Amino acid sequence: MQTTGLALHTDKYQINMLYAHWMNGSHLRKAVFEAYFRKLPFGNGYAVFAGLERIVNYLVNLRFTEEDLAYLAKQEENYKPEFLEMLRDFRFGGTLLSMKEGALVFPNEPLIRVEGTIMEAQLIETALLNFMNFQTLIATKASRIKQVAPDDILLEFGTRRAQEADAAIWGARAAYIAGFDATSNMLAGEYFGIPTKGTHAHSWVQGFESEEEAFELYAKALPDQVTLLVDTYDTLKSGVPNAIKTAKWLASQGKRMSSIRLDSGDLAYLSIQARKMLDDAGLSYVKIVASNDLDENTIFNLKAQGARIDIWGIGTQLITAADQPALGGVYKLVERQKGDTMVPTIKISANPEKISTPGKKEVYRLLSRSDKKALGDYITYPSETIPEERNNKLRLKHPLNSTLQKTVKNFEVMRMLEPIFEHGQLVYELPSLDQVRDYHKQQLSLFWPEYLRKLNPEIYRISLSEEVWNQRQSMIEAYLEQHDE
Amino acid sequence: MQTTGLALHTDKYQINMLYAHWMNGSHLRKAVFEAYFRKLPFGNGYAVFAGLERIVNYLVNLRFTEEDLAYLAKQEENYKPEFLEMLRDFRFGGTLLSMKEGALVFPNEPLIRVEGTIMEAQLIETALLNFMNFQTLIATKASRIKQVAPDDILLEFGTRRAQEADAAIWGARAAYIAGFDATSNMLAGEYFGIPTKGTHAHSWVQGFESEEEAFELYAKALPDQVTLLVDTYDTLKSGVPNAIKTAKWLASQGKRMSSIRLDSGDLAYLSIQARKMLDDAGLSYVKIVASNDLDENTIFNLKAQGARIDIWGIGTQLITAADQPALGGVYKLVERQKGDTMVPTIKISANPEKISTPGKKEVYRLLSRSDKKALGDYITYPSETIPEERNNKLRLKHPLNSTLQKTVKNFEVMRMLEPIFEHGQLVYELPSLDQVRDYHKQQLSLFWPEYLRKLNPEIYRISLSEEVWNQRQSMIEAYLEQHDE
Repeated sequence: MQTTGLALHTDKYQINMLYAHWMNGSHLRKAVFEAYFRKLPFGNGYAVFAGLERIVNYLVNLRFTEEDLAYLAKQEENYKPEFLEMLRDFRFGGTLLSMKEGALVFPNEPLIRVEGTIMEAQLIETALLNFMNFQTLIATKASRIKQVAPDDILLEFGTRRAQEADAAIWGARAAYIAGFDATSNMLAGEYFGIPTKGTHAHSWVQGFESEEEAFELYAKALPDQVTLLVDTYDTLKSGVPNAIKTAKWLASQGKRMSSIRLDSGDLAYLSIQARKMLDDAGLSYVKIVASNDLDENTIFNLKAQGARIDIWGIGTQLITAADQPALGGVYKLVERQKGDTMVPTIKISANPEKISTPGKKEVYRLLSRSDKKALGDYITYPSETIPEERNNKLRLKHPLNSTLQKTVKNFEVMRMLEPIFEHGQLVYELPSLDQVRDYHKQQLSLFWPEYLRKLNPEIYRISLSEEVWNQRQSMIEAYLEQHDE
Repeated sequence: MQTTGLALHTDKYQINMLYAHWMNGSHLRKAVFEAYFRKLPFGNGYAVFAGLERIVNYLVNLRFTEEDLAYLAKQEENYKPEFLEMLRDFRFGGTLLSMKEGALVFPNEPLIRVEGTIMEAQLIETALLNFMNFQTLIATKASRIKQVAPDDILLEFGTRRAQEADAAIWGARAAYIAGFDATSNMLAGEYFGIPTKGTHAHSWVQGFESEEEAFELYAKALPDQVTLLVDTYDTLKSGVPNAIKTAKWLASQGKRMSSIRLDSGDLAYLSIQARKMLDDAGLSYVKIVASNDLDENTIFNLKAQGARIDIWGIGTQLITAADQPALGGVYKLVERQKGDTMVPTIKISANPEKISTPGKKEVYRLLSRSDKKALGDYITYPSETIPEERNNKLRLKHPLNSTLQKTVKNFEVMRMLEPIFEHGQLVYELPSLDQVRDYHKQQLSLFWPEYLRKLNPEIYRISLSEEVWNQRQSMIEAYLEQHDE
């Protein structure tokens, strides 16, 4: 896990923009950027924010090494030596607020807000998005899987199909945040304290004269942790009967076999038959693990067919988020310094959902006082206040369509963006991974199941305050007037 | 880029199998494993092998750190201390052969062959597949894109959407192997010497009072490397006219503007109009860069519509291989030590294409003597010889269907698996990245275009020798007889 030497884990255009600002004397002007995504992945009703710990470590360690500077000196852009000298002393000195890892987050609300010099805020865009996009994507995918198997054990088994090492390791962590119980990746276990689980492969069975011998030797070596893979030859004719023999031998030693693993074939049929065979042999405590290209849809269907599976080993589909392997998070300039003041900025697009929302913003989650459930998120400018007295009332606007409105009453507010860095100082204590996981569970408990279901979830309301809405509209209109010649 | 401390970048079941073998006294028995994939990604006619350099660095540095051993000591498996002591001295001492990076490779042929103790061959499976699967996948995706735009400049722009940092960096390298010209990722440039390219973002334009001012200041700062992003406001009404002003000012300084970049809207229409505007202004040397969720299909269609695009910036779709984000490479035991000899092993499956091919194997590419084009790949046992005299002749069998046969004549052979490690010693000099890129071009030149096309390519013949075929058949029959009770 590389946390240092990442200053050049950025796009060249960031360096070119820093350079051009520096040449122009504008690199120390203040700017505010916000990171957000426009569309939920997988048709899900929410996303699970992740990546903050990685971003914090990156920012704390962010500096240009001598090798980085030597490399920059060789570029065809011919950066002036004074520019490189300035980079040598560069440290992140900005202010950063962020959603906490494990938070349920939604489209078009700021997830991370960065305030600093143009230089520092621009440089970090690429790495920040790279970390946030991937980890949030995998945590969201894992959360979908957890929704369909809330009471089962979920194991992350994806390393061999992950998109290189970081994806395996940070992906295992993201899955754990969203409710997975363990990973097979030992490095993720070592780094993050995630429980690790492992059984054996077909090659273990192939390495001996018979399946029976292979099972027996495995059980002798690891008598307290016996999961036997039963599909190397024929699952029901050979694998399960041999596993039962081993379980009985273990029982004679006073030990309980943990489980058998199915890795191919019709998992519904095989698990039902295997369950019966195990139960008939008095081995109702032996659990059934299934693996083989599983995701939330196959698991949902297997359960509907009555599959008797207790533990799910989930690989490729989770670790690559195979049905949508990228979250399109963006990082947009919302304010810039002009003279002595900050002015809002907007990005116009012919595509209405790509028009940005100007000005630096706060996100509040409104919770009903009666049942503590989330009513909607409310986006304001920092200077705005929200009525917090009893019987308070607010009208929520749909961010893209002002005709869709809804009044909420009698709520309390939860401020979602947490201060992480203030003027370069880390002011946030990173929670333990189990605290992050607990926070995610708390977050889930704030939402009615309608928002959480896998298929066609209810759309959770993200609303701009009147002031933010008006600012956005007036900037769009000013733009149209200016360009309407 | 982490190349050390990766011993635990493995699945727990590998450690559990090592332990069980060690408990059983069988960990030092010899074994042979082969890595291969069963199905080409993206419906392509070939894959581009990549990942070897990463695998070599991993194996050279493979050892358990004190932290790793301390972590293992805490596992619920209660590994005996003597086992951990043995791991402390572990080094990779095996023999490894591999396809060279850049090689065109095909389903069901060994890409990497590992011979060593069960222990060392088993431990490395996970990391080896993780590296090979991802890098081969991205090189293959990049090669498809290169096929549709062979004479254009291709830029890898995917970092912010990549699946974490390693994917961005190793993905950039894989794309370069397959013919991309540059990457935006500066760390990939620094590590691998890949050329880097960058323009500016919308935030550069938003940071100033007007687009015109923003362009002018950028051109002043980097007069030799000016690419202007023209879609922050209105591409044809504002962006291109302002870029033309800047280009003329540069021309008055004796400089040539490099290009403009289109990042939204109808790229076919906009590029045709922008080309005309540039040409009319005497700026035919200014090139047009396009970006915005491109892949081989959008590029192919844009070209068919007459788009005037010279340079393509390709992000998400390439770096995540979005239409198929995992290559299903596997690593199977093909031989094991039994007493003093090695015996072939087979993995049986109800799914015929999942039945493995027993015995350790060589791969030869047969090239026609007349035109030097590839006729097919031929898989043999190492002891077999291939007729190499003039007018030689071989019958090629289809690996899954023996009734499909084809006779090839008058060929020469290219041995595809290169010795990389011999008994733990690295015997291969890693080529430079440009040598890898050249090797890939040579490899492409061996194939008729019918095998290389994007849609419905001809299927290249991978054939088992008679001996390999018979061995496989007889082991399947022996299995059926044994289990046919």
